[in-house]
Amino acid sequence: MKVDGKNVRPIWLDEPTDTVKIIDQRLLPHEFTVIDLATVDDAIMAIADMAVRGAPLIGATGAWGVFLAARAAKESEAGIKTFALDCQRLKAARPTAVNLAWAVDRVVARVRNLESGADRVDTARVEAAAIAEEEAENCRLIGVHGLPLIQALSRAKDGAPVNLLTHCNAGWLACVEWGTATAPMYAAFDAGIDIHVWVDETRPLNQGARLTAWELGKYGIAHTVITDNAGGHLMQHGLVDMVIVGTDRTTYTGDVANKIGTYLKALAARDNGLPFYVALPSSTFDWTLTDGVAEIPIETRDPDEVRMIQGLDQEKIRQVLIPPETSPARNDAFDVTPARLVTGFITERGVCAASEAEILSLFPEKRNG
Amino acid sequence: MKVDGKNVRPIWLDEPTDTVKIIDQRLLPHEFTVIDLATVDDAIMAIADMAVRGAPLIGATGAWGVFLAARAAKESEAGIKTFALDCQRLKAARPTAVNLAWAVDRVVARVRNLESGADRVDTARVEAAAIAEEEAENCRLIGVHGLPLIQALSRAKDGAPVNLLTHCNAGWLACVEWGTATAPMYAAFDAGIDIHVWVDETRPLNQGARLTAWELGKYGIAHTVITDNAGGHLMQHGLVDMVIVGTDRTTYTGDVANKIGTYLKALAARDNGLPFYVALPSSTFDWTLTDGVAEIPIETRDPDEVRMIQGLDQEKIRQVLIPPETSPARNDAFDVTPARLVTGFITERGVCAASEAEILSLFPEKRNG
Repeated sequence: MKVDGKNVRPIWLDEPTDTVKIIDQRLLPHEFTVIDLATVDDAIMAIADMAVRGAPLIGATGAWGVFLAARAAKESEAGIKTFALDCQRLKAARPTAVNLAWAVDRVVARVRNLESGADRVDTARVEAAAIAEEEAENCRLIGVHGLPLIQALSRAKDGAPVNLLTHCNAGWLACVEWGTATAPMYAAFDAGIDIHVWVDETRPLNQGARLTAWELGKYGIAHTVITDNAGGHLMQHGLVDMVIVGTDRTTYTGDVANKIGTYLKALAARDNGLPFYVALPSSTFDWTLTDGVAEIPIETRDPDEVRMIQGLDQEKIRQVLIPPETSPARNDAFDVTPARLVTGFITERGVCAASEAEILSLFPEKRNG
Repeated sequence: MKVDGKNVRPIWLDEPTDTVKIIDQRLLPHEFTVIDLATVDDAIMAIADMAVRGAPLIGATGAWGVFLAARAAKESEAGIKTFALDCQRLKAARPTAVNLAWAVDRVVARVRNLESGADRVDTARVEAAAIAEEEAENCRLIGVHGLPLIQALSRAKDGAPVNLLTHCNAGWLACVEWGTATAPMYAAFDAGIDIHVWVDETRPLNQGARLTAWELGKYGIAHTVITDNAGGHLMQHGLVDMVIVGTDRTTYTGDVANKIGTYLKALAARDNGLPFYVALPSSTFDWTLTDGVAEIPIETRDPDEVRMIQGLDQEKIRQVLIPPETSPARNDAFDVTPARLVTGFITERGVCAASEAEILSLFPEKRNG
């Protein structure tokens, strides 16, 4: 995507140096910093510490991590054994997004039976790049399929601004290009539709206020940052036309794990008769789980992510403590929105309702596992 | 209430100097600072800038503001005319909490027809003190009437910890003594019931993380700070037994204006079959409005309260900027939870369901206005 006139992605291979590079999303919007992932441990740290985040991007980073592991294995004596352990550690870096295991497994499957270390490295490089390209294309297609939903709202409002609400960042920063939830927004903006986006700040790590607001601003899309508390009130007063969010893992029965707080917005959308859409590439579907609330593992992170908030003060990025030093906190990173609250899914193959039958009719090759 | 062994209130008259004093709640929990309200403008600023906040405390501050206005009027030539204007300005300091107008009107009604300036000052002093004492006693009674609800949950759980969830600060800091939502918690704790409180941080001004956590910690009550996004997830997983919140204005038909985000917690409680109680003194009922969502005025505050967050960094209280400098924000301070989502009200006269009939049967003197 273009940022200040320059094409950028949140992860890429710098070909002259054969180095994997990422934008350090922990410092946005106040600092734009690129860092190198030189080793598989760099990739694991980048995922666990959320220098990269968002289900498709975690997948892409996992894929590039396999490339880094293959390169290390080639040069070490332990070879293929270390490689297998490295890939296990990569998959365990974060538990909720299903794309991570999916992407790691996919690259591993391509290189597992290759005898030469050099072949493994070359094949992993090609496959990781392919995954990133496919995710970019999937997101573009999500935009293509989501656009008519926004066009219809715009027509129904006689061209008055369509107010979309999103939670967290399911933008291109989370997804290589276009984003998932944002892809229909970018498509609508490019099609000349008047849109405005309510951006949930998304505590504790403020990916909405920091990242989605930054992305939309750089693209020129009108947006307003709101607290996570505000969406219900705005819906009650006719100020929201549609909710679009991303997801970290969605069961084939339609239950949606996404950034904590998504469930509350889905409840409010239902209570106000508003459409609640989830945008995702098929790599985010979990084809094995049936009950999202009971079965999707929800990551619990450092409570200090709740107690401390990072922001800019006099040109310096600082962390400030909010509650009393002695008050504990709890930090569940995701929640699960039951399928009954989801109007539909926007995927690279089209839009479907949140039911097993409809999901499998879009992805018939997934029947029987 | 006791803080580090000393009895304190959020507002009081220092009798030796005849000075109204308040705790500056903007600096808690990191600094405990007492400031003087010397003039009616000090009182208006304290309310508007939220050095004092919470419906009953805003009411008490408004009452003491009338005393300050009466004292100024006594000494000025314009006299009673300035006084009337001052009281109007006091009432307009914040629009949502009905207690402010109620308390100002009550003191004004007592002094309006007194001829002597000295009498007006003395009567206002007595009436403001009476309002503060009555609110303290009302809150104590809310604790008495709310306690059995928590006792019943404790019995049903065979003494296992009862998990309560609250939003914002409806504690003694908001209410002179005991608080509204917290009164049943303090009563349960004093009765030896094992309770634990989930404290919504309550963006944008973090009254939960800053004030409720501080209050509960000082009293020794087990609590955990969570983001405003987390409550629904905790409810889905059986970690919440009951929600208790306060209110800034509740219609006699049962619609509840409270800190923004309350509505989302009410939706989640309903979706998970959990009791959602609202604790309030009768001074917070609005006996004139029937449709809370349509009719209760919702204050819109400075967007920078959303964009900036205040906390402690290296012993200094700082404000940090979260979103890009160029991203706008919106800051609605309250939302309205429709009566259909409220299990019941805990008042100084007892508990009732959220319906006009039940509310008026507790307060029969309010029939016909």
